[in-house]
Formats: sequence, C-alpha cells, structure tokens
Amino acid sequence: MSEAAARRRGRGGGGAARRAERTAVSIETAKYIERNIPLFEVLNEEALDIIEQNAETVLEEIGVNFVENPKALERWREVGADVEGERVRIPRGLARELIKTAPGEYTQHARNPERSVVVGGRNLVCAPVYGPPFVRDMDHGRRYATMEDFEKFVKLGYMSRWLHHSGGTVCEPTDIPVNKRHLDMLKTHMTLSDKPFMGSVTDPSRAQDSVDMCGILFGEDFVRDNTVMTSLININSPMTFDEVMMGALEVYARNNQACIISPFIVGGAMAPVSVAGTLTQVLAEVMAGIAYSQIIRPGAPVIFGAFVTSIDMNSGAPTFGTPEASLITYGAGQLARRYGLPFRSAGSFNGSKLPDAQAAYETANSLNLGLLSGVNFMLHSCGWLEGGLVSSFEKFVMDADQLGALQNMARGVDMTENGQAMDAIREVGPGGHYLGCAHTQANFKKSFWRSDLLDYKPYEQWAEEGERDTMTLANIKVKQTLANYQQPALDPAISEALDAFVSEKKASMPDAFS
Amino acid sequence: MSEAAARRRGRGGGGAARRAERTAVSIETAKYIERNIPLFEVLNEEALDIIEQNAETVLEEIGVNFVENPKALERWREVGADVEGERVRIPRGLARELIKTAPGEYTQHARNPERSVVVGGRNLVCAPVYGPPFVRDMDHGRRYATMEDFEKFVKLGYMSRWLHHSGGTVCEPTDIPVNKRHLDMLKTHMTLSDKPFMGSVTDPSRAQDSVDMCGILFGEDFVRDNTVMTSLININSPMTFDEVMMGALEVYARNNQACIISPFIVGGAMAPVSVAGTLTQVLAEVMAGIAYSQIIRPGAPVIFGAFVTSIDMNSGAPTFGTPEASLITYGAGQLARRYGLPFRSAGSFNGSKLPDAQAAYETANSLNLGLLSGVNFMLHSCGWLEGGLVSSFEKFVMDADQLGALQNMARGVDMTENGQAMDAIREVGPGGHYLGCAHTQANFKKSFWRSDLLDYKPYEQWAEEGERDTMTLANIKVKQTLANYQQPALDPAISEALDAFVSEKKASMPDAFS
Repeated sequence: MSEAAARRRGRGGGGAARRAERTAVSIETAKYIERNIPLFEVLNEEALDIIEQNAETVLEEIGVNFVENPKALERWREVGADVEGERVRIPRGLARELIKTAPGEYTQHARNPERSVVVGGRNLVCAPVYGPPFVRDMDHGRRYATMEDFEKFVKLGYMSRWLHHSGGTVCEPTDIPVNKRHLDMLKTHMTLSDKPFMGSVTDPSRAQDSVDMCGILFGEDFVRDNTVMTSLININSPMTFDEVMMGALEVYARNNQACIISPFIVGGAMAPVSVAGTLTQVLAEVMAGIAYSQIIRPGAPVIFGAFVTSIDMNSGAPTFGTPEASLITYGAGQLARRYGLPFRSAGSFNGSKLPDAQAAYETANSLNLGLLSGVNFMLHSCGWLEGGLVSSFEKFVMDADQLGALQNMARGVDMTENGQAMDAIREVGPGGHYLGCAHTQANFKKSFWRSDLLDYKPYEQWAEEGERDTMTLANIKVKQTLANYQQPALDPAISEALDAFVSEKKASMPDAFS
Repeated sequence: MSEAAARRRGRGGGGAARRAERTAVSIETAKYIERNIPLFEVLNEEALDIIEQNAETVLEEIGVNFVENPKALERWREVGADVEGERVRIPRGLARELIKTAPGEYTQHARNPERSVVVGGRNLVCAPVYGPPFVRDMDHGRRYATMEDFEKFVKLGYMSRWLHHSGGTVCEPTDIPVNKRHLDMLKTHMTLSDKPFMGSVTDPSRAQDSVDMCGILFGEDFVRDNTVMTSLININSPMTFDEVMMGALEVYARNNQACIISPFIVGGAMAPVSVAGTLTQVLAEVMAGIAYSQIIRPGAPVIFGAFVTSIDMNSGAPTFGTPEASLITYGAGQLARRYGLPFRSAGSFNGSKLPDAQAAYETANSLNLGLLSGVNFMLHSCGWLEGGLVSSFEKFVMDADQLGALQNMARGVDMTENGQAMDAIREVGPGGHYLGCAHTQANFKKSFWRSDLLDYKPYEQWAEEGERDTMTLANIKVKQTLANYQQPALDPAISEALDAFVSEKKASMPDAFS
C-alpha cells in the first residue's frame, strides 16, 4: 500500500491518475505463483561441486569473449581479470565473489501496484512468448507479424487470468521500422495493459528509450529508486558477449533495472551434447555475465537464465520438451539456488507447426518442468509455436489456461482439519457418495482447478456441437477475449506524454528495416 | 539365464520351442525404466504421519464393507477384525501388520525371458490402456470395439519400443460374448505378443481360466513357482470390496499371481474433495485390500494402486491431468514407499474426445507425474482417450512415443569424465561450434532422445508435405506398424493346446452378453 502510494506520488499524475484508477475495469489476475511444494532436484552435492569447479576452470583457463567492447575489457582488467585481445580469463573465485552483490529477489513494479511481481524466492512469474517474427491463427494461417498482432497479444495477456506479466516482444511487428518498433511496443505494453513488462535490448539507445519512457509512465524519481522492467540479455553461447547485448545490459544495470542473463543453447551446437557439460558452460557464462552486471552497478537486479534445448542430430533442428533439456533445466535451477539468484528457464516450448498434440506434449513437459525446477521467471510461458518462429493466437490461450494448473499444483496439500476431511469420510461411509456431503458442499468451489477452455462435455453434446478440437475452442476463446477486452485506465496526461516522446523519437531518425 | 532355462524346461515344449525361439523376429524393446533420478515428494513426515493415523482410524472406527462374501468375513474374523454384518472394522495396527508379508518387488515373467519385468524398487513398467468399450481412429471414427481392434492394439503394443507390457483389456471386444471374451483376449496376448500380460478379473472362474491358460503357456510347474500375470483388482470406493473382484483376487493370490489393489476414485464423488482426505481413504482402502490378499496367501505379490481423478463440479464430469490428481498421486507414491510396496498410478489420462492438444496436455501432465511420483506399474500408459471410454489407435502410438522421453529422463545425469565434457569445451572455445567436435562425434548417437513420430522438419517441407498434424502422422504410423508386424514365434504344440482349451471352454456354456 505504501509502495503504491509512493508510486502514485512519484508519477505526478495527481487527481487525474487517481480518478482513472477508481474507474478502471479490474481484470482478475493471479499475482504470481507462490510455491507451497518442494522442488525437484536431479544433482547431488558432489555433482554440483564438480560442475562448479569445472565452470571455474572454464572461466580461468578458457575464458569468455567480450566482443567489440573496449570499455568492458577495461572494466574486467580493473577488477583483476586477465584480458588478452577480447578474451577475458577470470581467476578462480573472482566471478563468484563479484556476483555476491546481486539480490536474491527483487520487486518489479507494474503501473497497477496490484500487478507488481516479486521475482525470486519460491515465486514463479509467468510472461508470454518473446521474439517470433511470424504469427499464426486458424483464420489466416501463418504470416509475418504486424503491430496489429502485437496489440492483440498484449490484450490477450492483459485478459489472461494466470499470466502475471505482459512480456516484451510478444511478436516482432515487422511492419514498423526496426529502429522504431521498440517505441510502439513499449507504448502498447504501457497503455493496453497494466501488468509489468520488458524493455528493449536490440540497441543500447533503445534500452535508454525504454528507461526514459518508464520515467514518463512511473515518474523519473520512482524509476530511479525502483525496478520497473525485466529485460532479456542473451549470451551468444559458447562464451561470447556481444556489444549490443552488453550495451543494453550496461544501460539497464546502471539504471537499476533487472536483466535476465541467459545463455541461448541448442545442445550439441552451442554447448556439449552432454547434460553435465552443458551445465558447466551455462554456469560459466551466467557467472561471467552476472559478474559484469555487478561491475557496472553492484546490487543491480539480475536473473540466472538458461534457455536450453536439444537438437535432432538427423536434421540439425532444435527439439523441445525433451528429456535432456529437462535434466539440464533441473540442474540449472539447483545452480541458481546455490548462488542465491532468481532463475529463468522453461516455457511453452515446442517444435510443432500447429497447436496440436505435439505442441501440447512438448509444452506440457516444459511447463511442468518450469514449476518443479524452481523457475522464478518463466518467459515464453504461453503462445510459443514452431521452435519460437511463430506466436500462435490459439496456443497463447491454450497455454495460458494450463498455467492455471501450475498455479493450483503449487498450492500444495492442505493438512488442516478441513483438509483432512475425516468428518466427510465418517459422514459418507462405505458405499456412500461424497457429492452431497457437508464437506463437499463447503469446499467444492475452490477444491479443483477447472480449465476455462478445455472440453469437459459428454460425447453426445460434443458431437452435436460440431466435434470441435482444442484449436477450434481456442480460436473461439481468442475472439471472445478480444471482444471483451477493456483497456485499463491511464492518466491522459501520461498517455499524451508517451505519444509525444514516441513521435519525437520517430521523427529524429530515418526508417531502418534491418 | 537360469530362470529362462527353467522356464523352457517347465513349459515342456522341448525342441520345437527352442527352434521357434531361434527363428523368432526380435522386436527391440526397452526392458523397463530404471530410475537413476530422485523422486518428487509433496508431503513431509508430519503429513504422512497424520494420514497414516487417520487411515488407521478409518479402518478401526468406520471400517470397510466386504459385500456378498461370507468367507471373506470369516477370514477377517479369524485374524481379529470386528465383523458386523458386512462391515469389517480392523483394529489399529492389524492391517499394517498383515501387509508386512507382501513383497517389495516381484518379477513378472514373460514367455520371452528378455521381456520379463521386475515390478517395484526404482523401476517403472509401462502397460497400455485398459478397459474402453469404444475405439477411435481417423479412418472410421468412434465405434464399439471388436476383437479385430483388440488384436491390432496387442500388435501395436508388441511393436512399441518403449512399452514394456502387453496389458490386459486393451479394449473390450464387444463382438465376443461377455462370458467368453477373456479367453480370446488372453490367447491374443499369449500368441500375438511375447511381452508380459494381465489376467481376467470379471469373474473368479475367469481368473481361474487365466491361471490355467498360463499353465499351458508356461508349464504348470513354472506357474506354481513364478508370477506370470499382474491383474487389476479395483476397489469400489468408498471402502467397498465386492465379491467379483475379491473372488478374482482370491484366485490370483492363492496361485501366487500378482494383483494391483486399486481404489477407483473420482475426487468429490468417491472420496472427499480434498487431497489429504482422499489420500487417507486411499490408504485405508489399499491397506484393507492388501491385508486381505496376505490373509489368502502371505507373500502373494501385490501393488499399491491409486486411480485418482478430479471432477468438474459444474457438470460432474471426471477431469484428467489436473493439479489435484497430481498432488494425490505424489502423496500416494510416498505412502506406497512407506510400506515398501510397489506402486501403480498415472497413465495417458485425458478427457478429450480427440487425440488433440487437450489430450496431449492432460496426458503429458500425468505421464511426467508417473515418472516423478515413483510409479512402478503404469497401466493406461498409452492409448487412453475420452475419460477411458475410448482406446485410440493414433493416441496409442503418440503416447508410446512419449514413454521414450520418460525412459531417457530416468537415465539421469552422467557425471563421468565423458559426461563432464571439459575436453569439448576446451576444443571449441568462445564463439565456436560443437557440431563437429570430437566429443560430439563420439556421443551424439545416444545423447538426445529423438521422437519416432513427431515432426522436426523445416516449415517449408512440412507445408509441402500437406501440413500434417500429429494425429495424421500417428495415423500413418499405426498403419506402418501394423504392416510391419511380425508375430513372435511360439511352439505350435502350445498354440494348439491353447486353442483346444479355449474351444472346450467356449463349448461348455451358452453365450452371455451381459
């Protein structure tokens, strides 16, 4: 409450903002998943020690490359690394020492304080798919994504009860110039949703634009003192940190904004074909990346990321929801916890071209993994199709529905007297029926998770209604949701200031499409 | 090896059997899943204690009903239970004492010794769907199952690399009289497959027929000394043990054949709407059932079963792959291990009418659960559709393929020097590529699980080939598999003896269709 009050004051919107908030339509959203269940761990202490020691050896003997970034090399030299050309060799223990200042959890504020998320600890924050250049729906098939598609996904995300975060590049709006689309994307997240969102990372100047636009939305003072974005910094595995991503990281870390530091690994191509080998490389890369963030600003919030998938050795295609990727993710979660860092991994990963059974098997394998491996920030938690090339409208609502199952699974087992239900067992007795008993009547509403999408009808009714499959039901749900969408209120002064910022920026440079 | 030799001697087939075995086509099958990973547990010690104490209270104060089974009541009275009408109240600690003679694991022998399975410990044996009266495929839709369908499912099971067990009623052959179909079903499992199978439980006399037919297949001496069937004994939850199921259990236990003792629970209807309450009832029921099996014959092999699903409180429909069913199953696994008993639960459960995304989400939720909850015998591990009303040909091969993912997940993490892959990381270095390195070349063949069914093709190729979804690919796979099927060899004398037994039995009674 006091945070919310502080934010409102900081924003400076005054009476208009308060009026807007009072009249806002409130969309019911789960805040985030708080796990009341244990985590699943595949590695024992000895295995963790080996991987840790090997990662230190990688950093010390092999090192990592910071590419086209002389300032970064200078910074590394200053803290005691051995720099040779662009290669940075980090003495044993140094990265580990540097990452100690990274916080174990942080709050990412949303403009609606009800939607702020705490990233870390036992929490799981779910954000939608990120990055696809294509979209697909049943009505129009597969096509390049546009700004109109982007807006629809933000609306769907806002309306999704089990989605906690609006995400970032929910699809690439390919109809907007590359050097300007981040402005429209950010404005869309800021105005069509009130959930937390991600900043741009495709250029350091765009990261700065993101910070500046947040200054307008939240108030500059507020942004100075609080984290209002979580952005995705990919590492070019193996062991390469490019100047664009590091430039964006520098902007965000300097501004106390959170970054996911994430190796991007197709196993067998960007990392060894073995689980332990991949974990070693992941750990070395993340330690180097997070250490660098802490060199920029000690205490800057970061997430231990791991995007990991396997490869089909017949065709070279990346494969998803596979057992090896699962083992790596479980192990990576253990490593993140070993260093007390929030963890990002898993998502609605699949290699299917359609939101069919393959898509769902692979996705469910990965979503379950996300819950049990201790993921704190699950990017791509809904909407991912075709190995990440496609944002699927139907799959977005299908996956978002399944996130509700994770949320309920995380509740764990109620061992109170009511949960034990001995009265019910006594009341019903052998051969009886529980539907009508007092305990059932008192508890049924919140006892079982119920899908808002899937088909629970008797066969005959389902057949009469046209034998609709899940994709068809999801297509209807997408249309209903968009039809029911109501924009969350925003102080008109803020909205106008954002428009002005975007217009000015756009006018300041020619369009670029690559 | 010596077991195999003993079995061959016992069978009495002599030279013909040996010749048959030498010429047999060997279908590659994984023996069973041996877990090299930990299990996931949701209950702490205190919660387990509470559930155990509550279950003892249920047995002592409420009791269970043994219906139309005066001999059972007499047996219970003899061991010290309090019998009042058909109600059996079991003094605190008595059931727990009685179940101590049940073995922690047992070998179920297959006629091909390579296919024998060890049920219990860290193993997971996968068996197909059991019981649906309908079948469905893409070509002919949904229809009543026939013996021809049954045969096809047995063939698919035999040909499935990741399926360890031929199962039982893979579908109900509704074109064969109810009182005779068990004979045809058993003969089909015995002759069209060489994997282990299940016996009939629909009448005690049919259980006896199953034992007698195994006498022909394995040799009577062998069957006397070894377990050659695992059969499914359902409890009529809440707390009711009917005379048909108990009659079958009596036959099997007396003959040292294994039974799954399994509450059949739709949560909120046959058990309380709470996880802890359901676990309490499950434990009480299983303890009573297993205790009864040990009264019949101490040491008879049994499995702690738990068929658990939730309910849609809007419609009353059972729902599958839901978080509450998962929590119950994880807890039930912990209880089974607490008593050192093999555990049966999970499967390819779903409520969908089609093998679509809903089917796959729900199934994957449950299959993953099966692996991580410590299930030792997973009935329904492939082919289940529409809440168990339908055996689906396409889904059978889809699910069976996913069992391969479980098998590979269970391998755990290789922490050998080769697994650590430090040489690979050194060889490749920052910015390099692993595809061509020595470690990848040496390891890629067995590094990553690869689906035999799912689509890994580039979009363009997939589009050119007709944009096939998973169901379509599975339909093709079903046809290919059946076309490639080759019957495993069997001593003709045994085959003839089985035919004679079946003919004689069929001739001995009029057809009954209910």
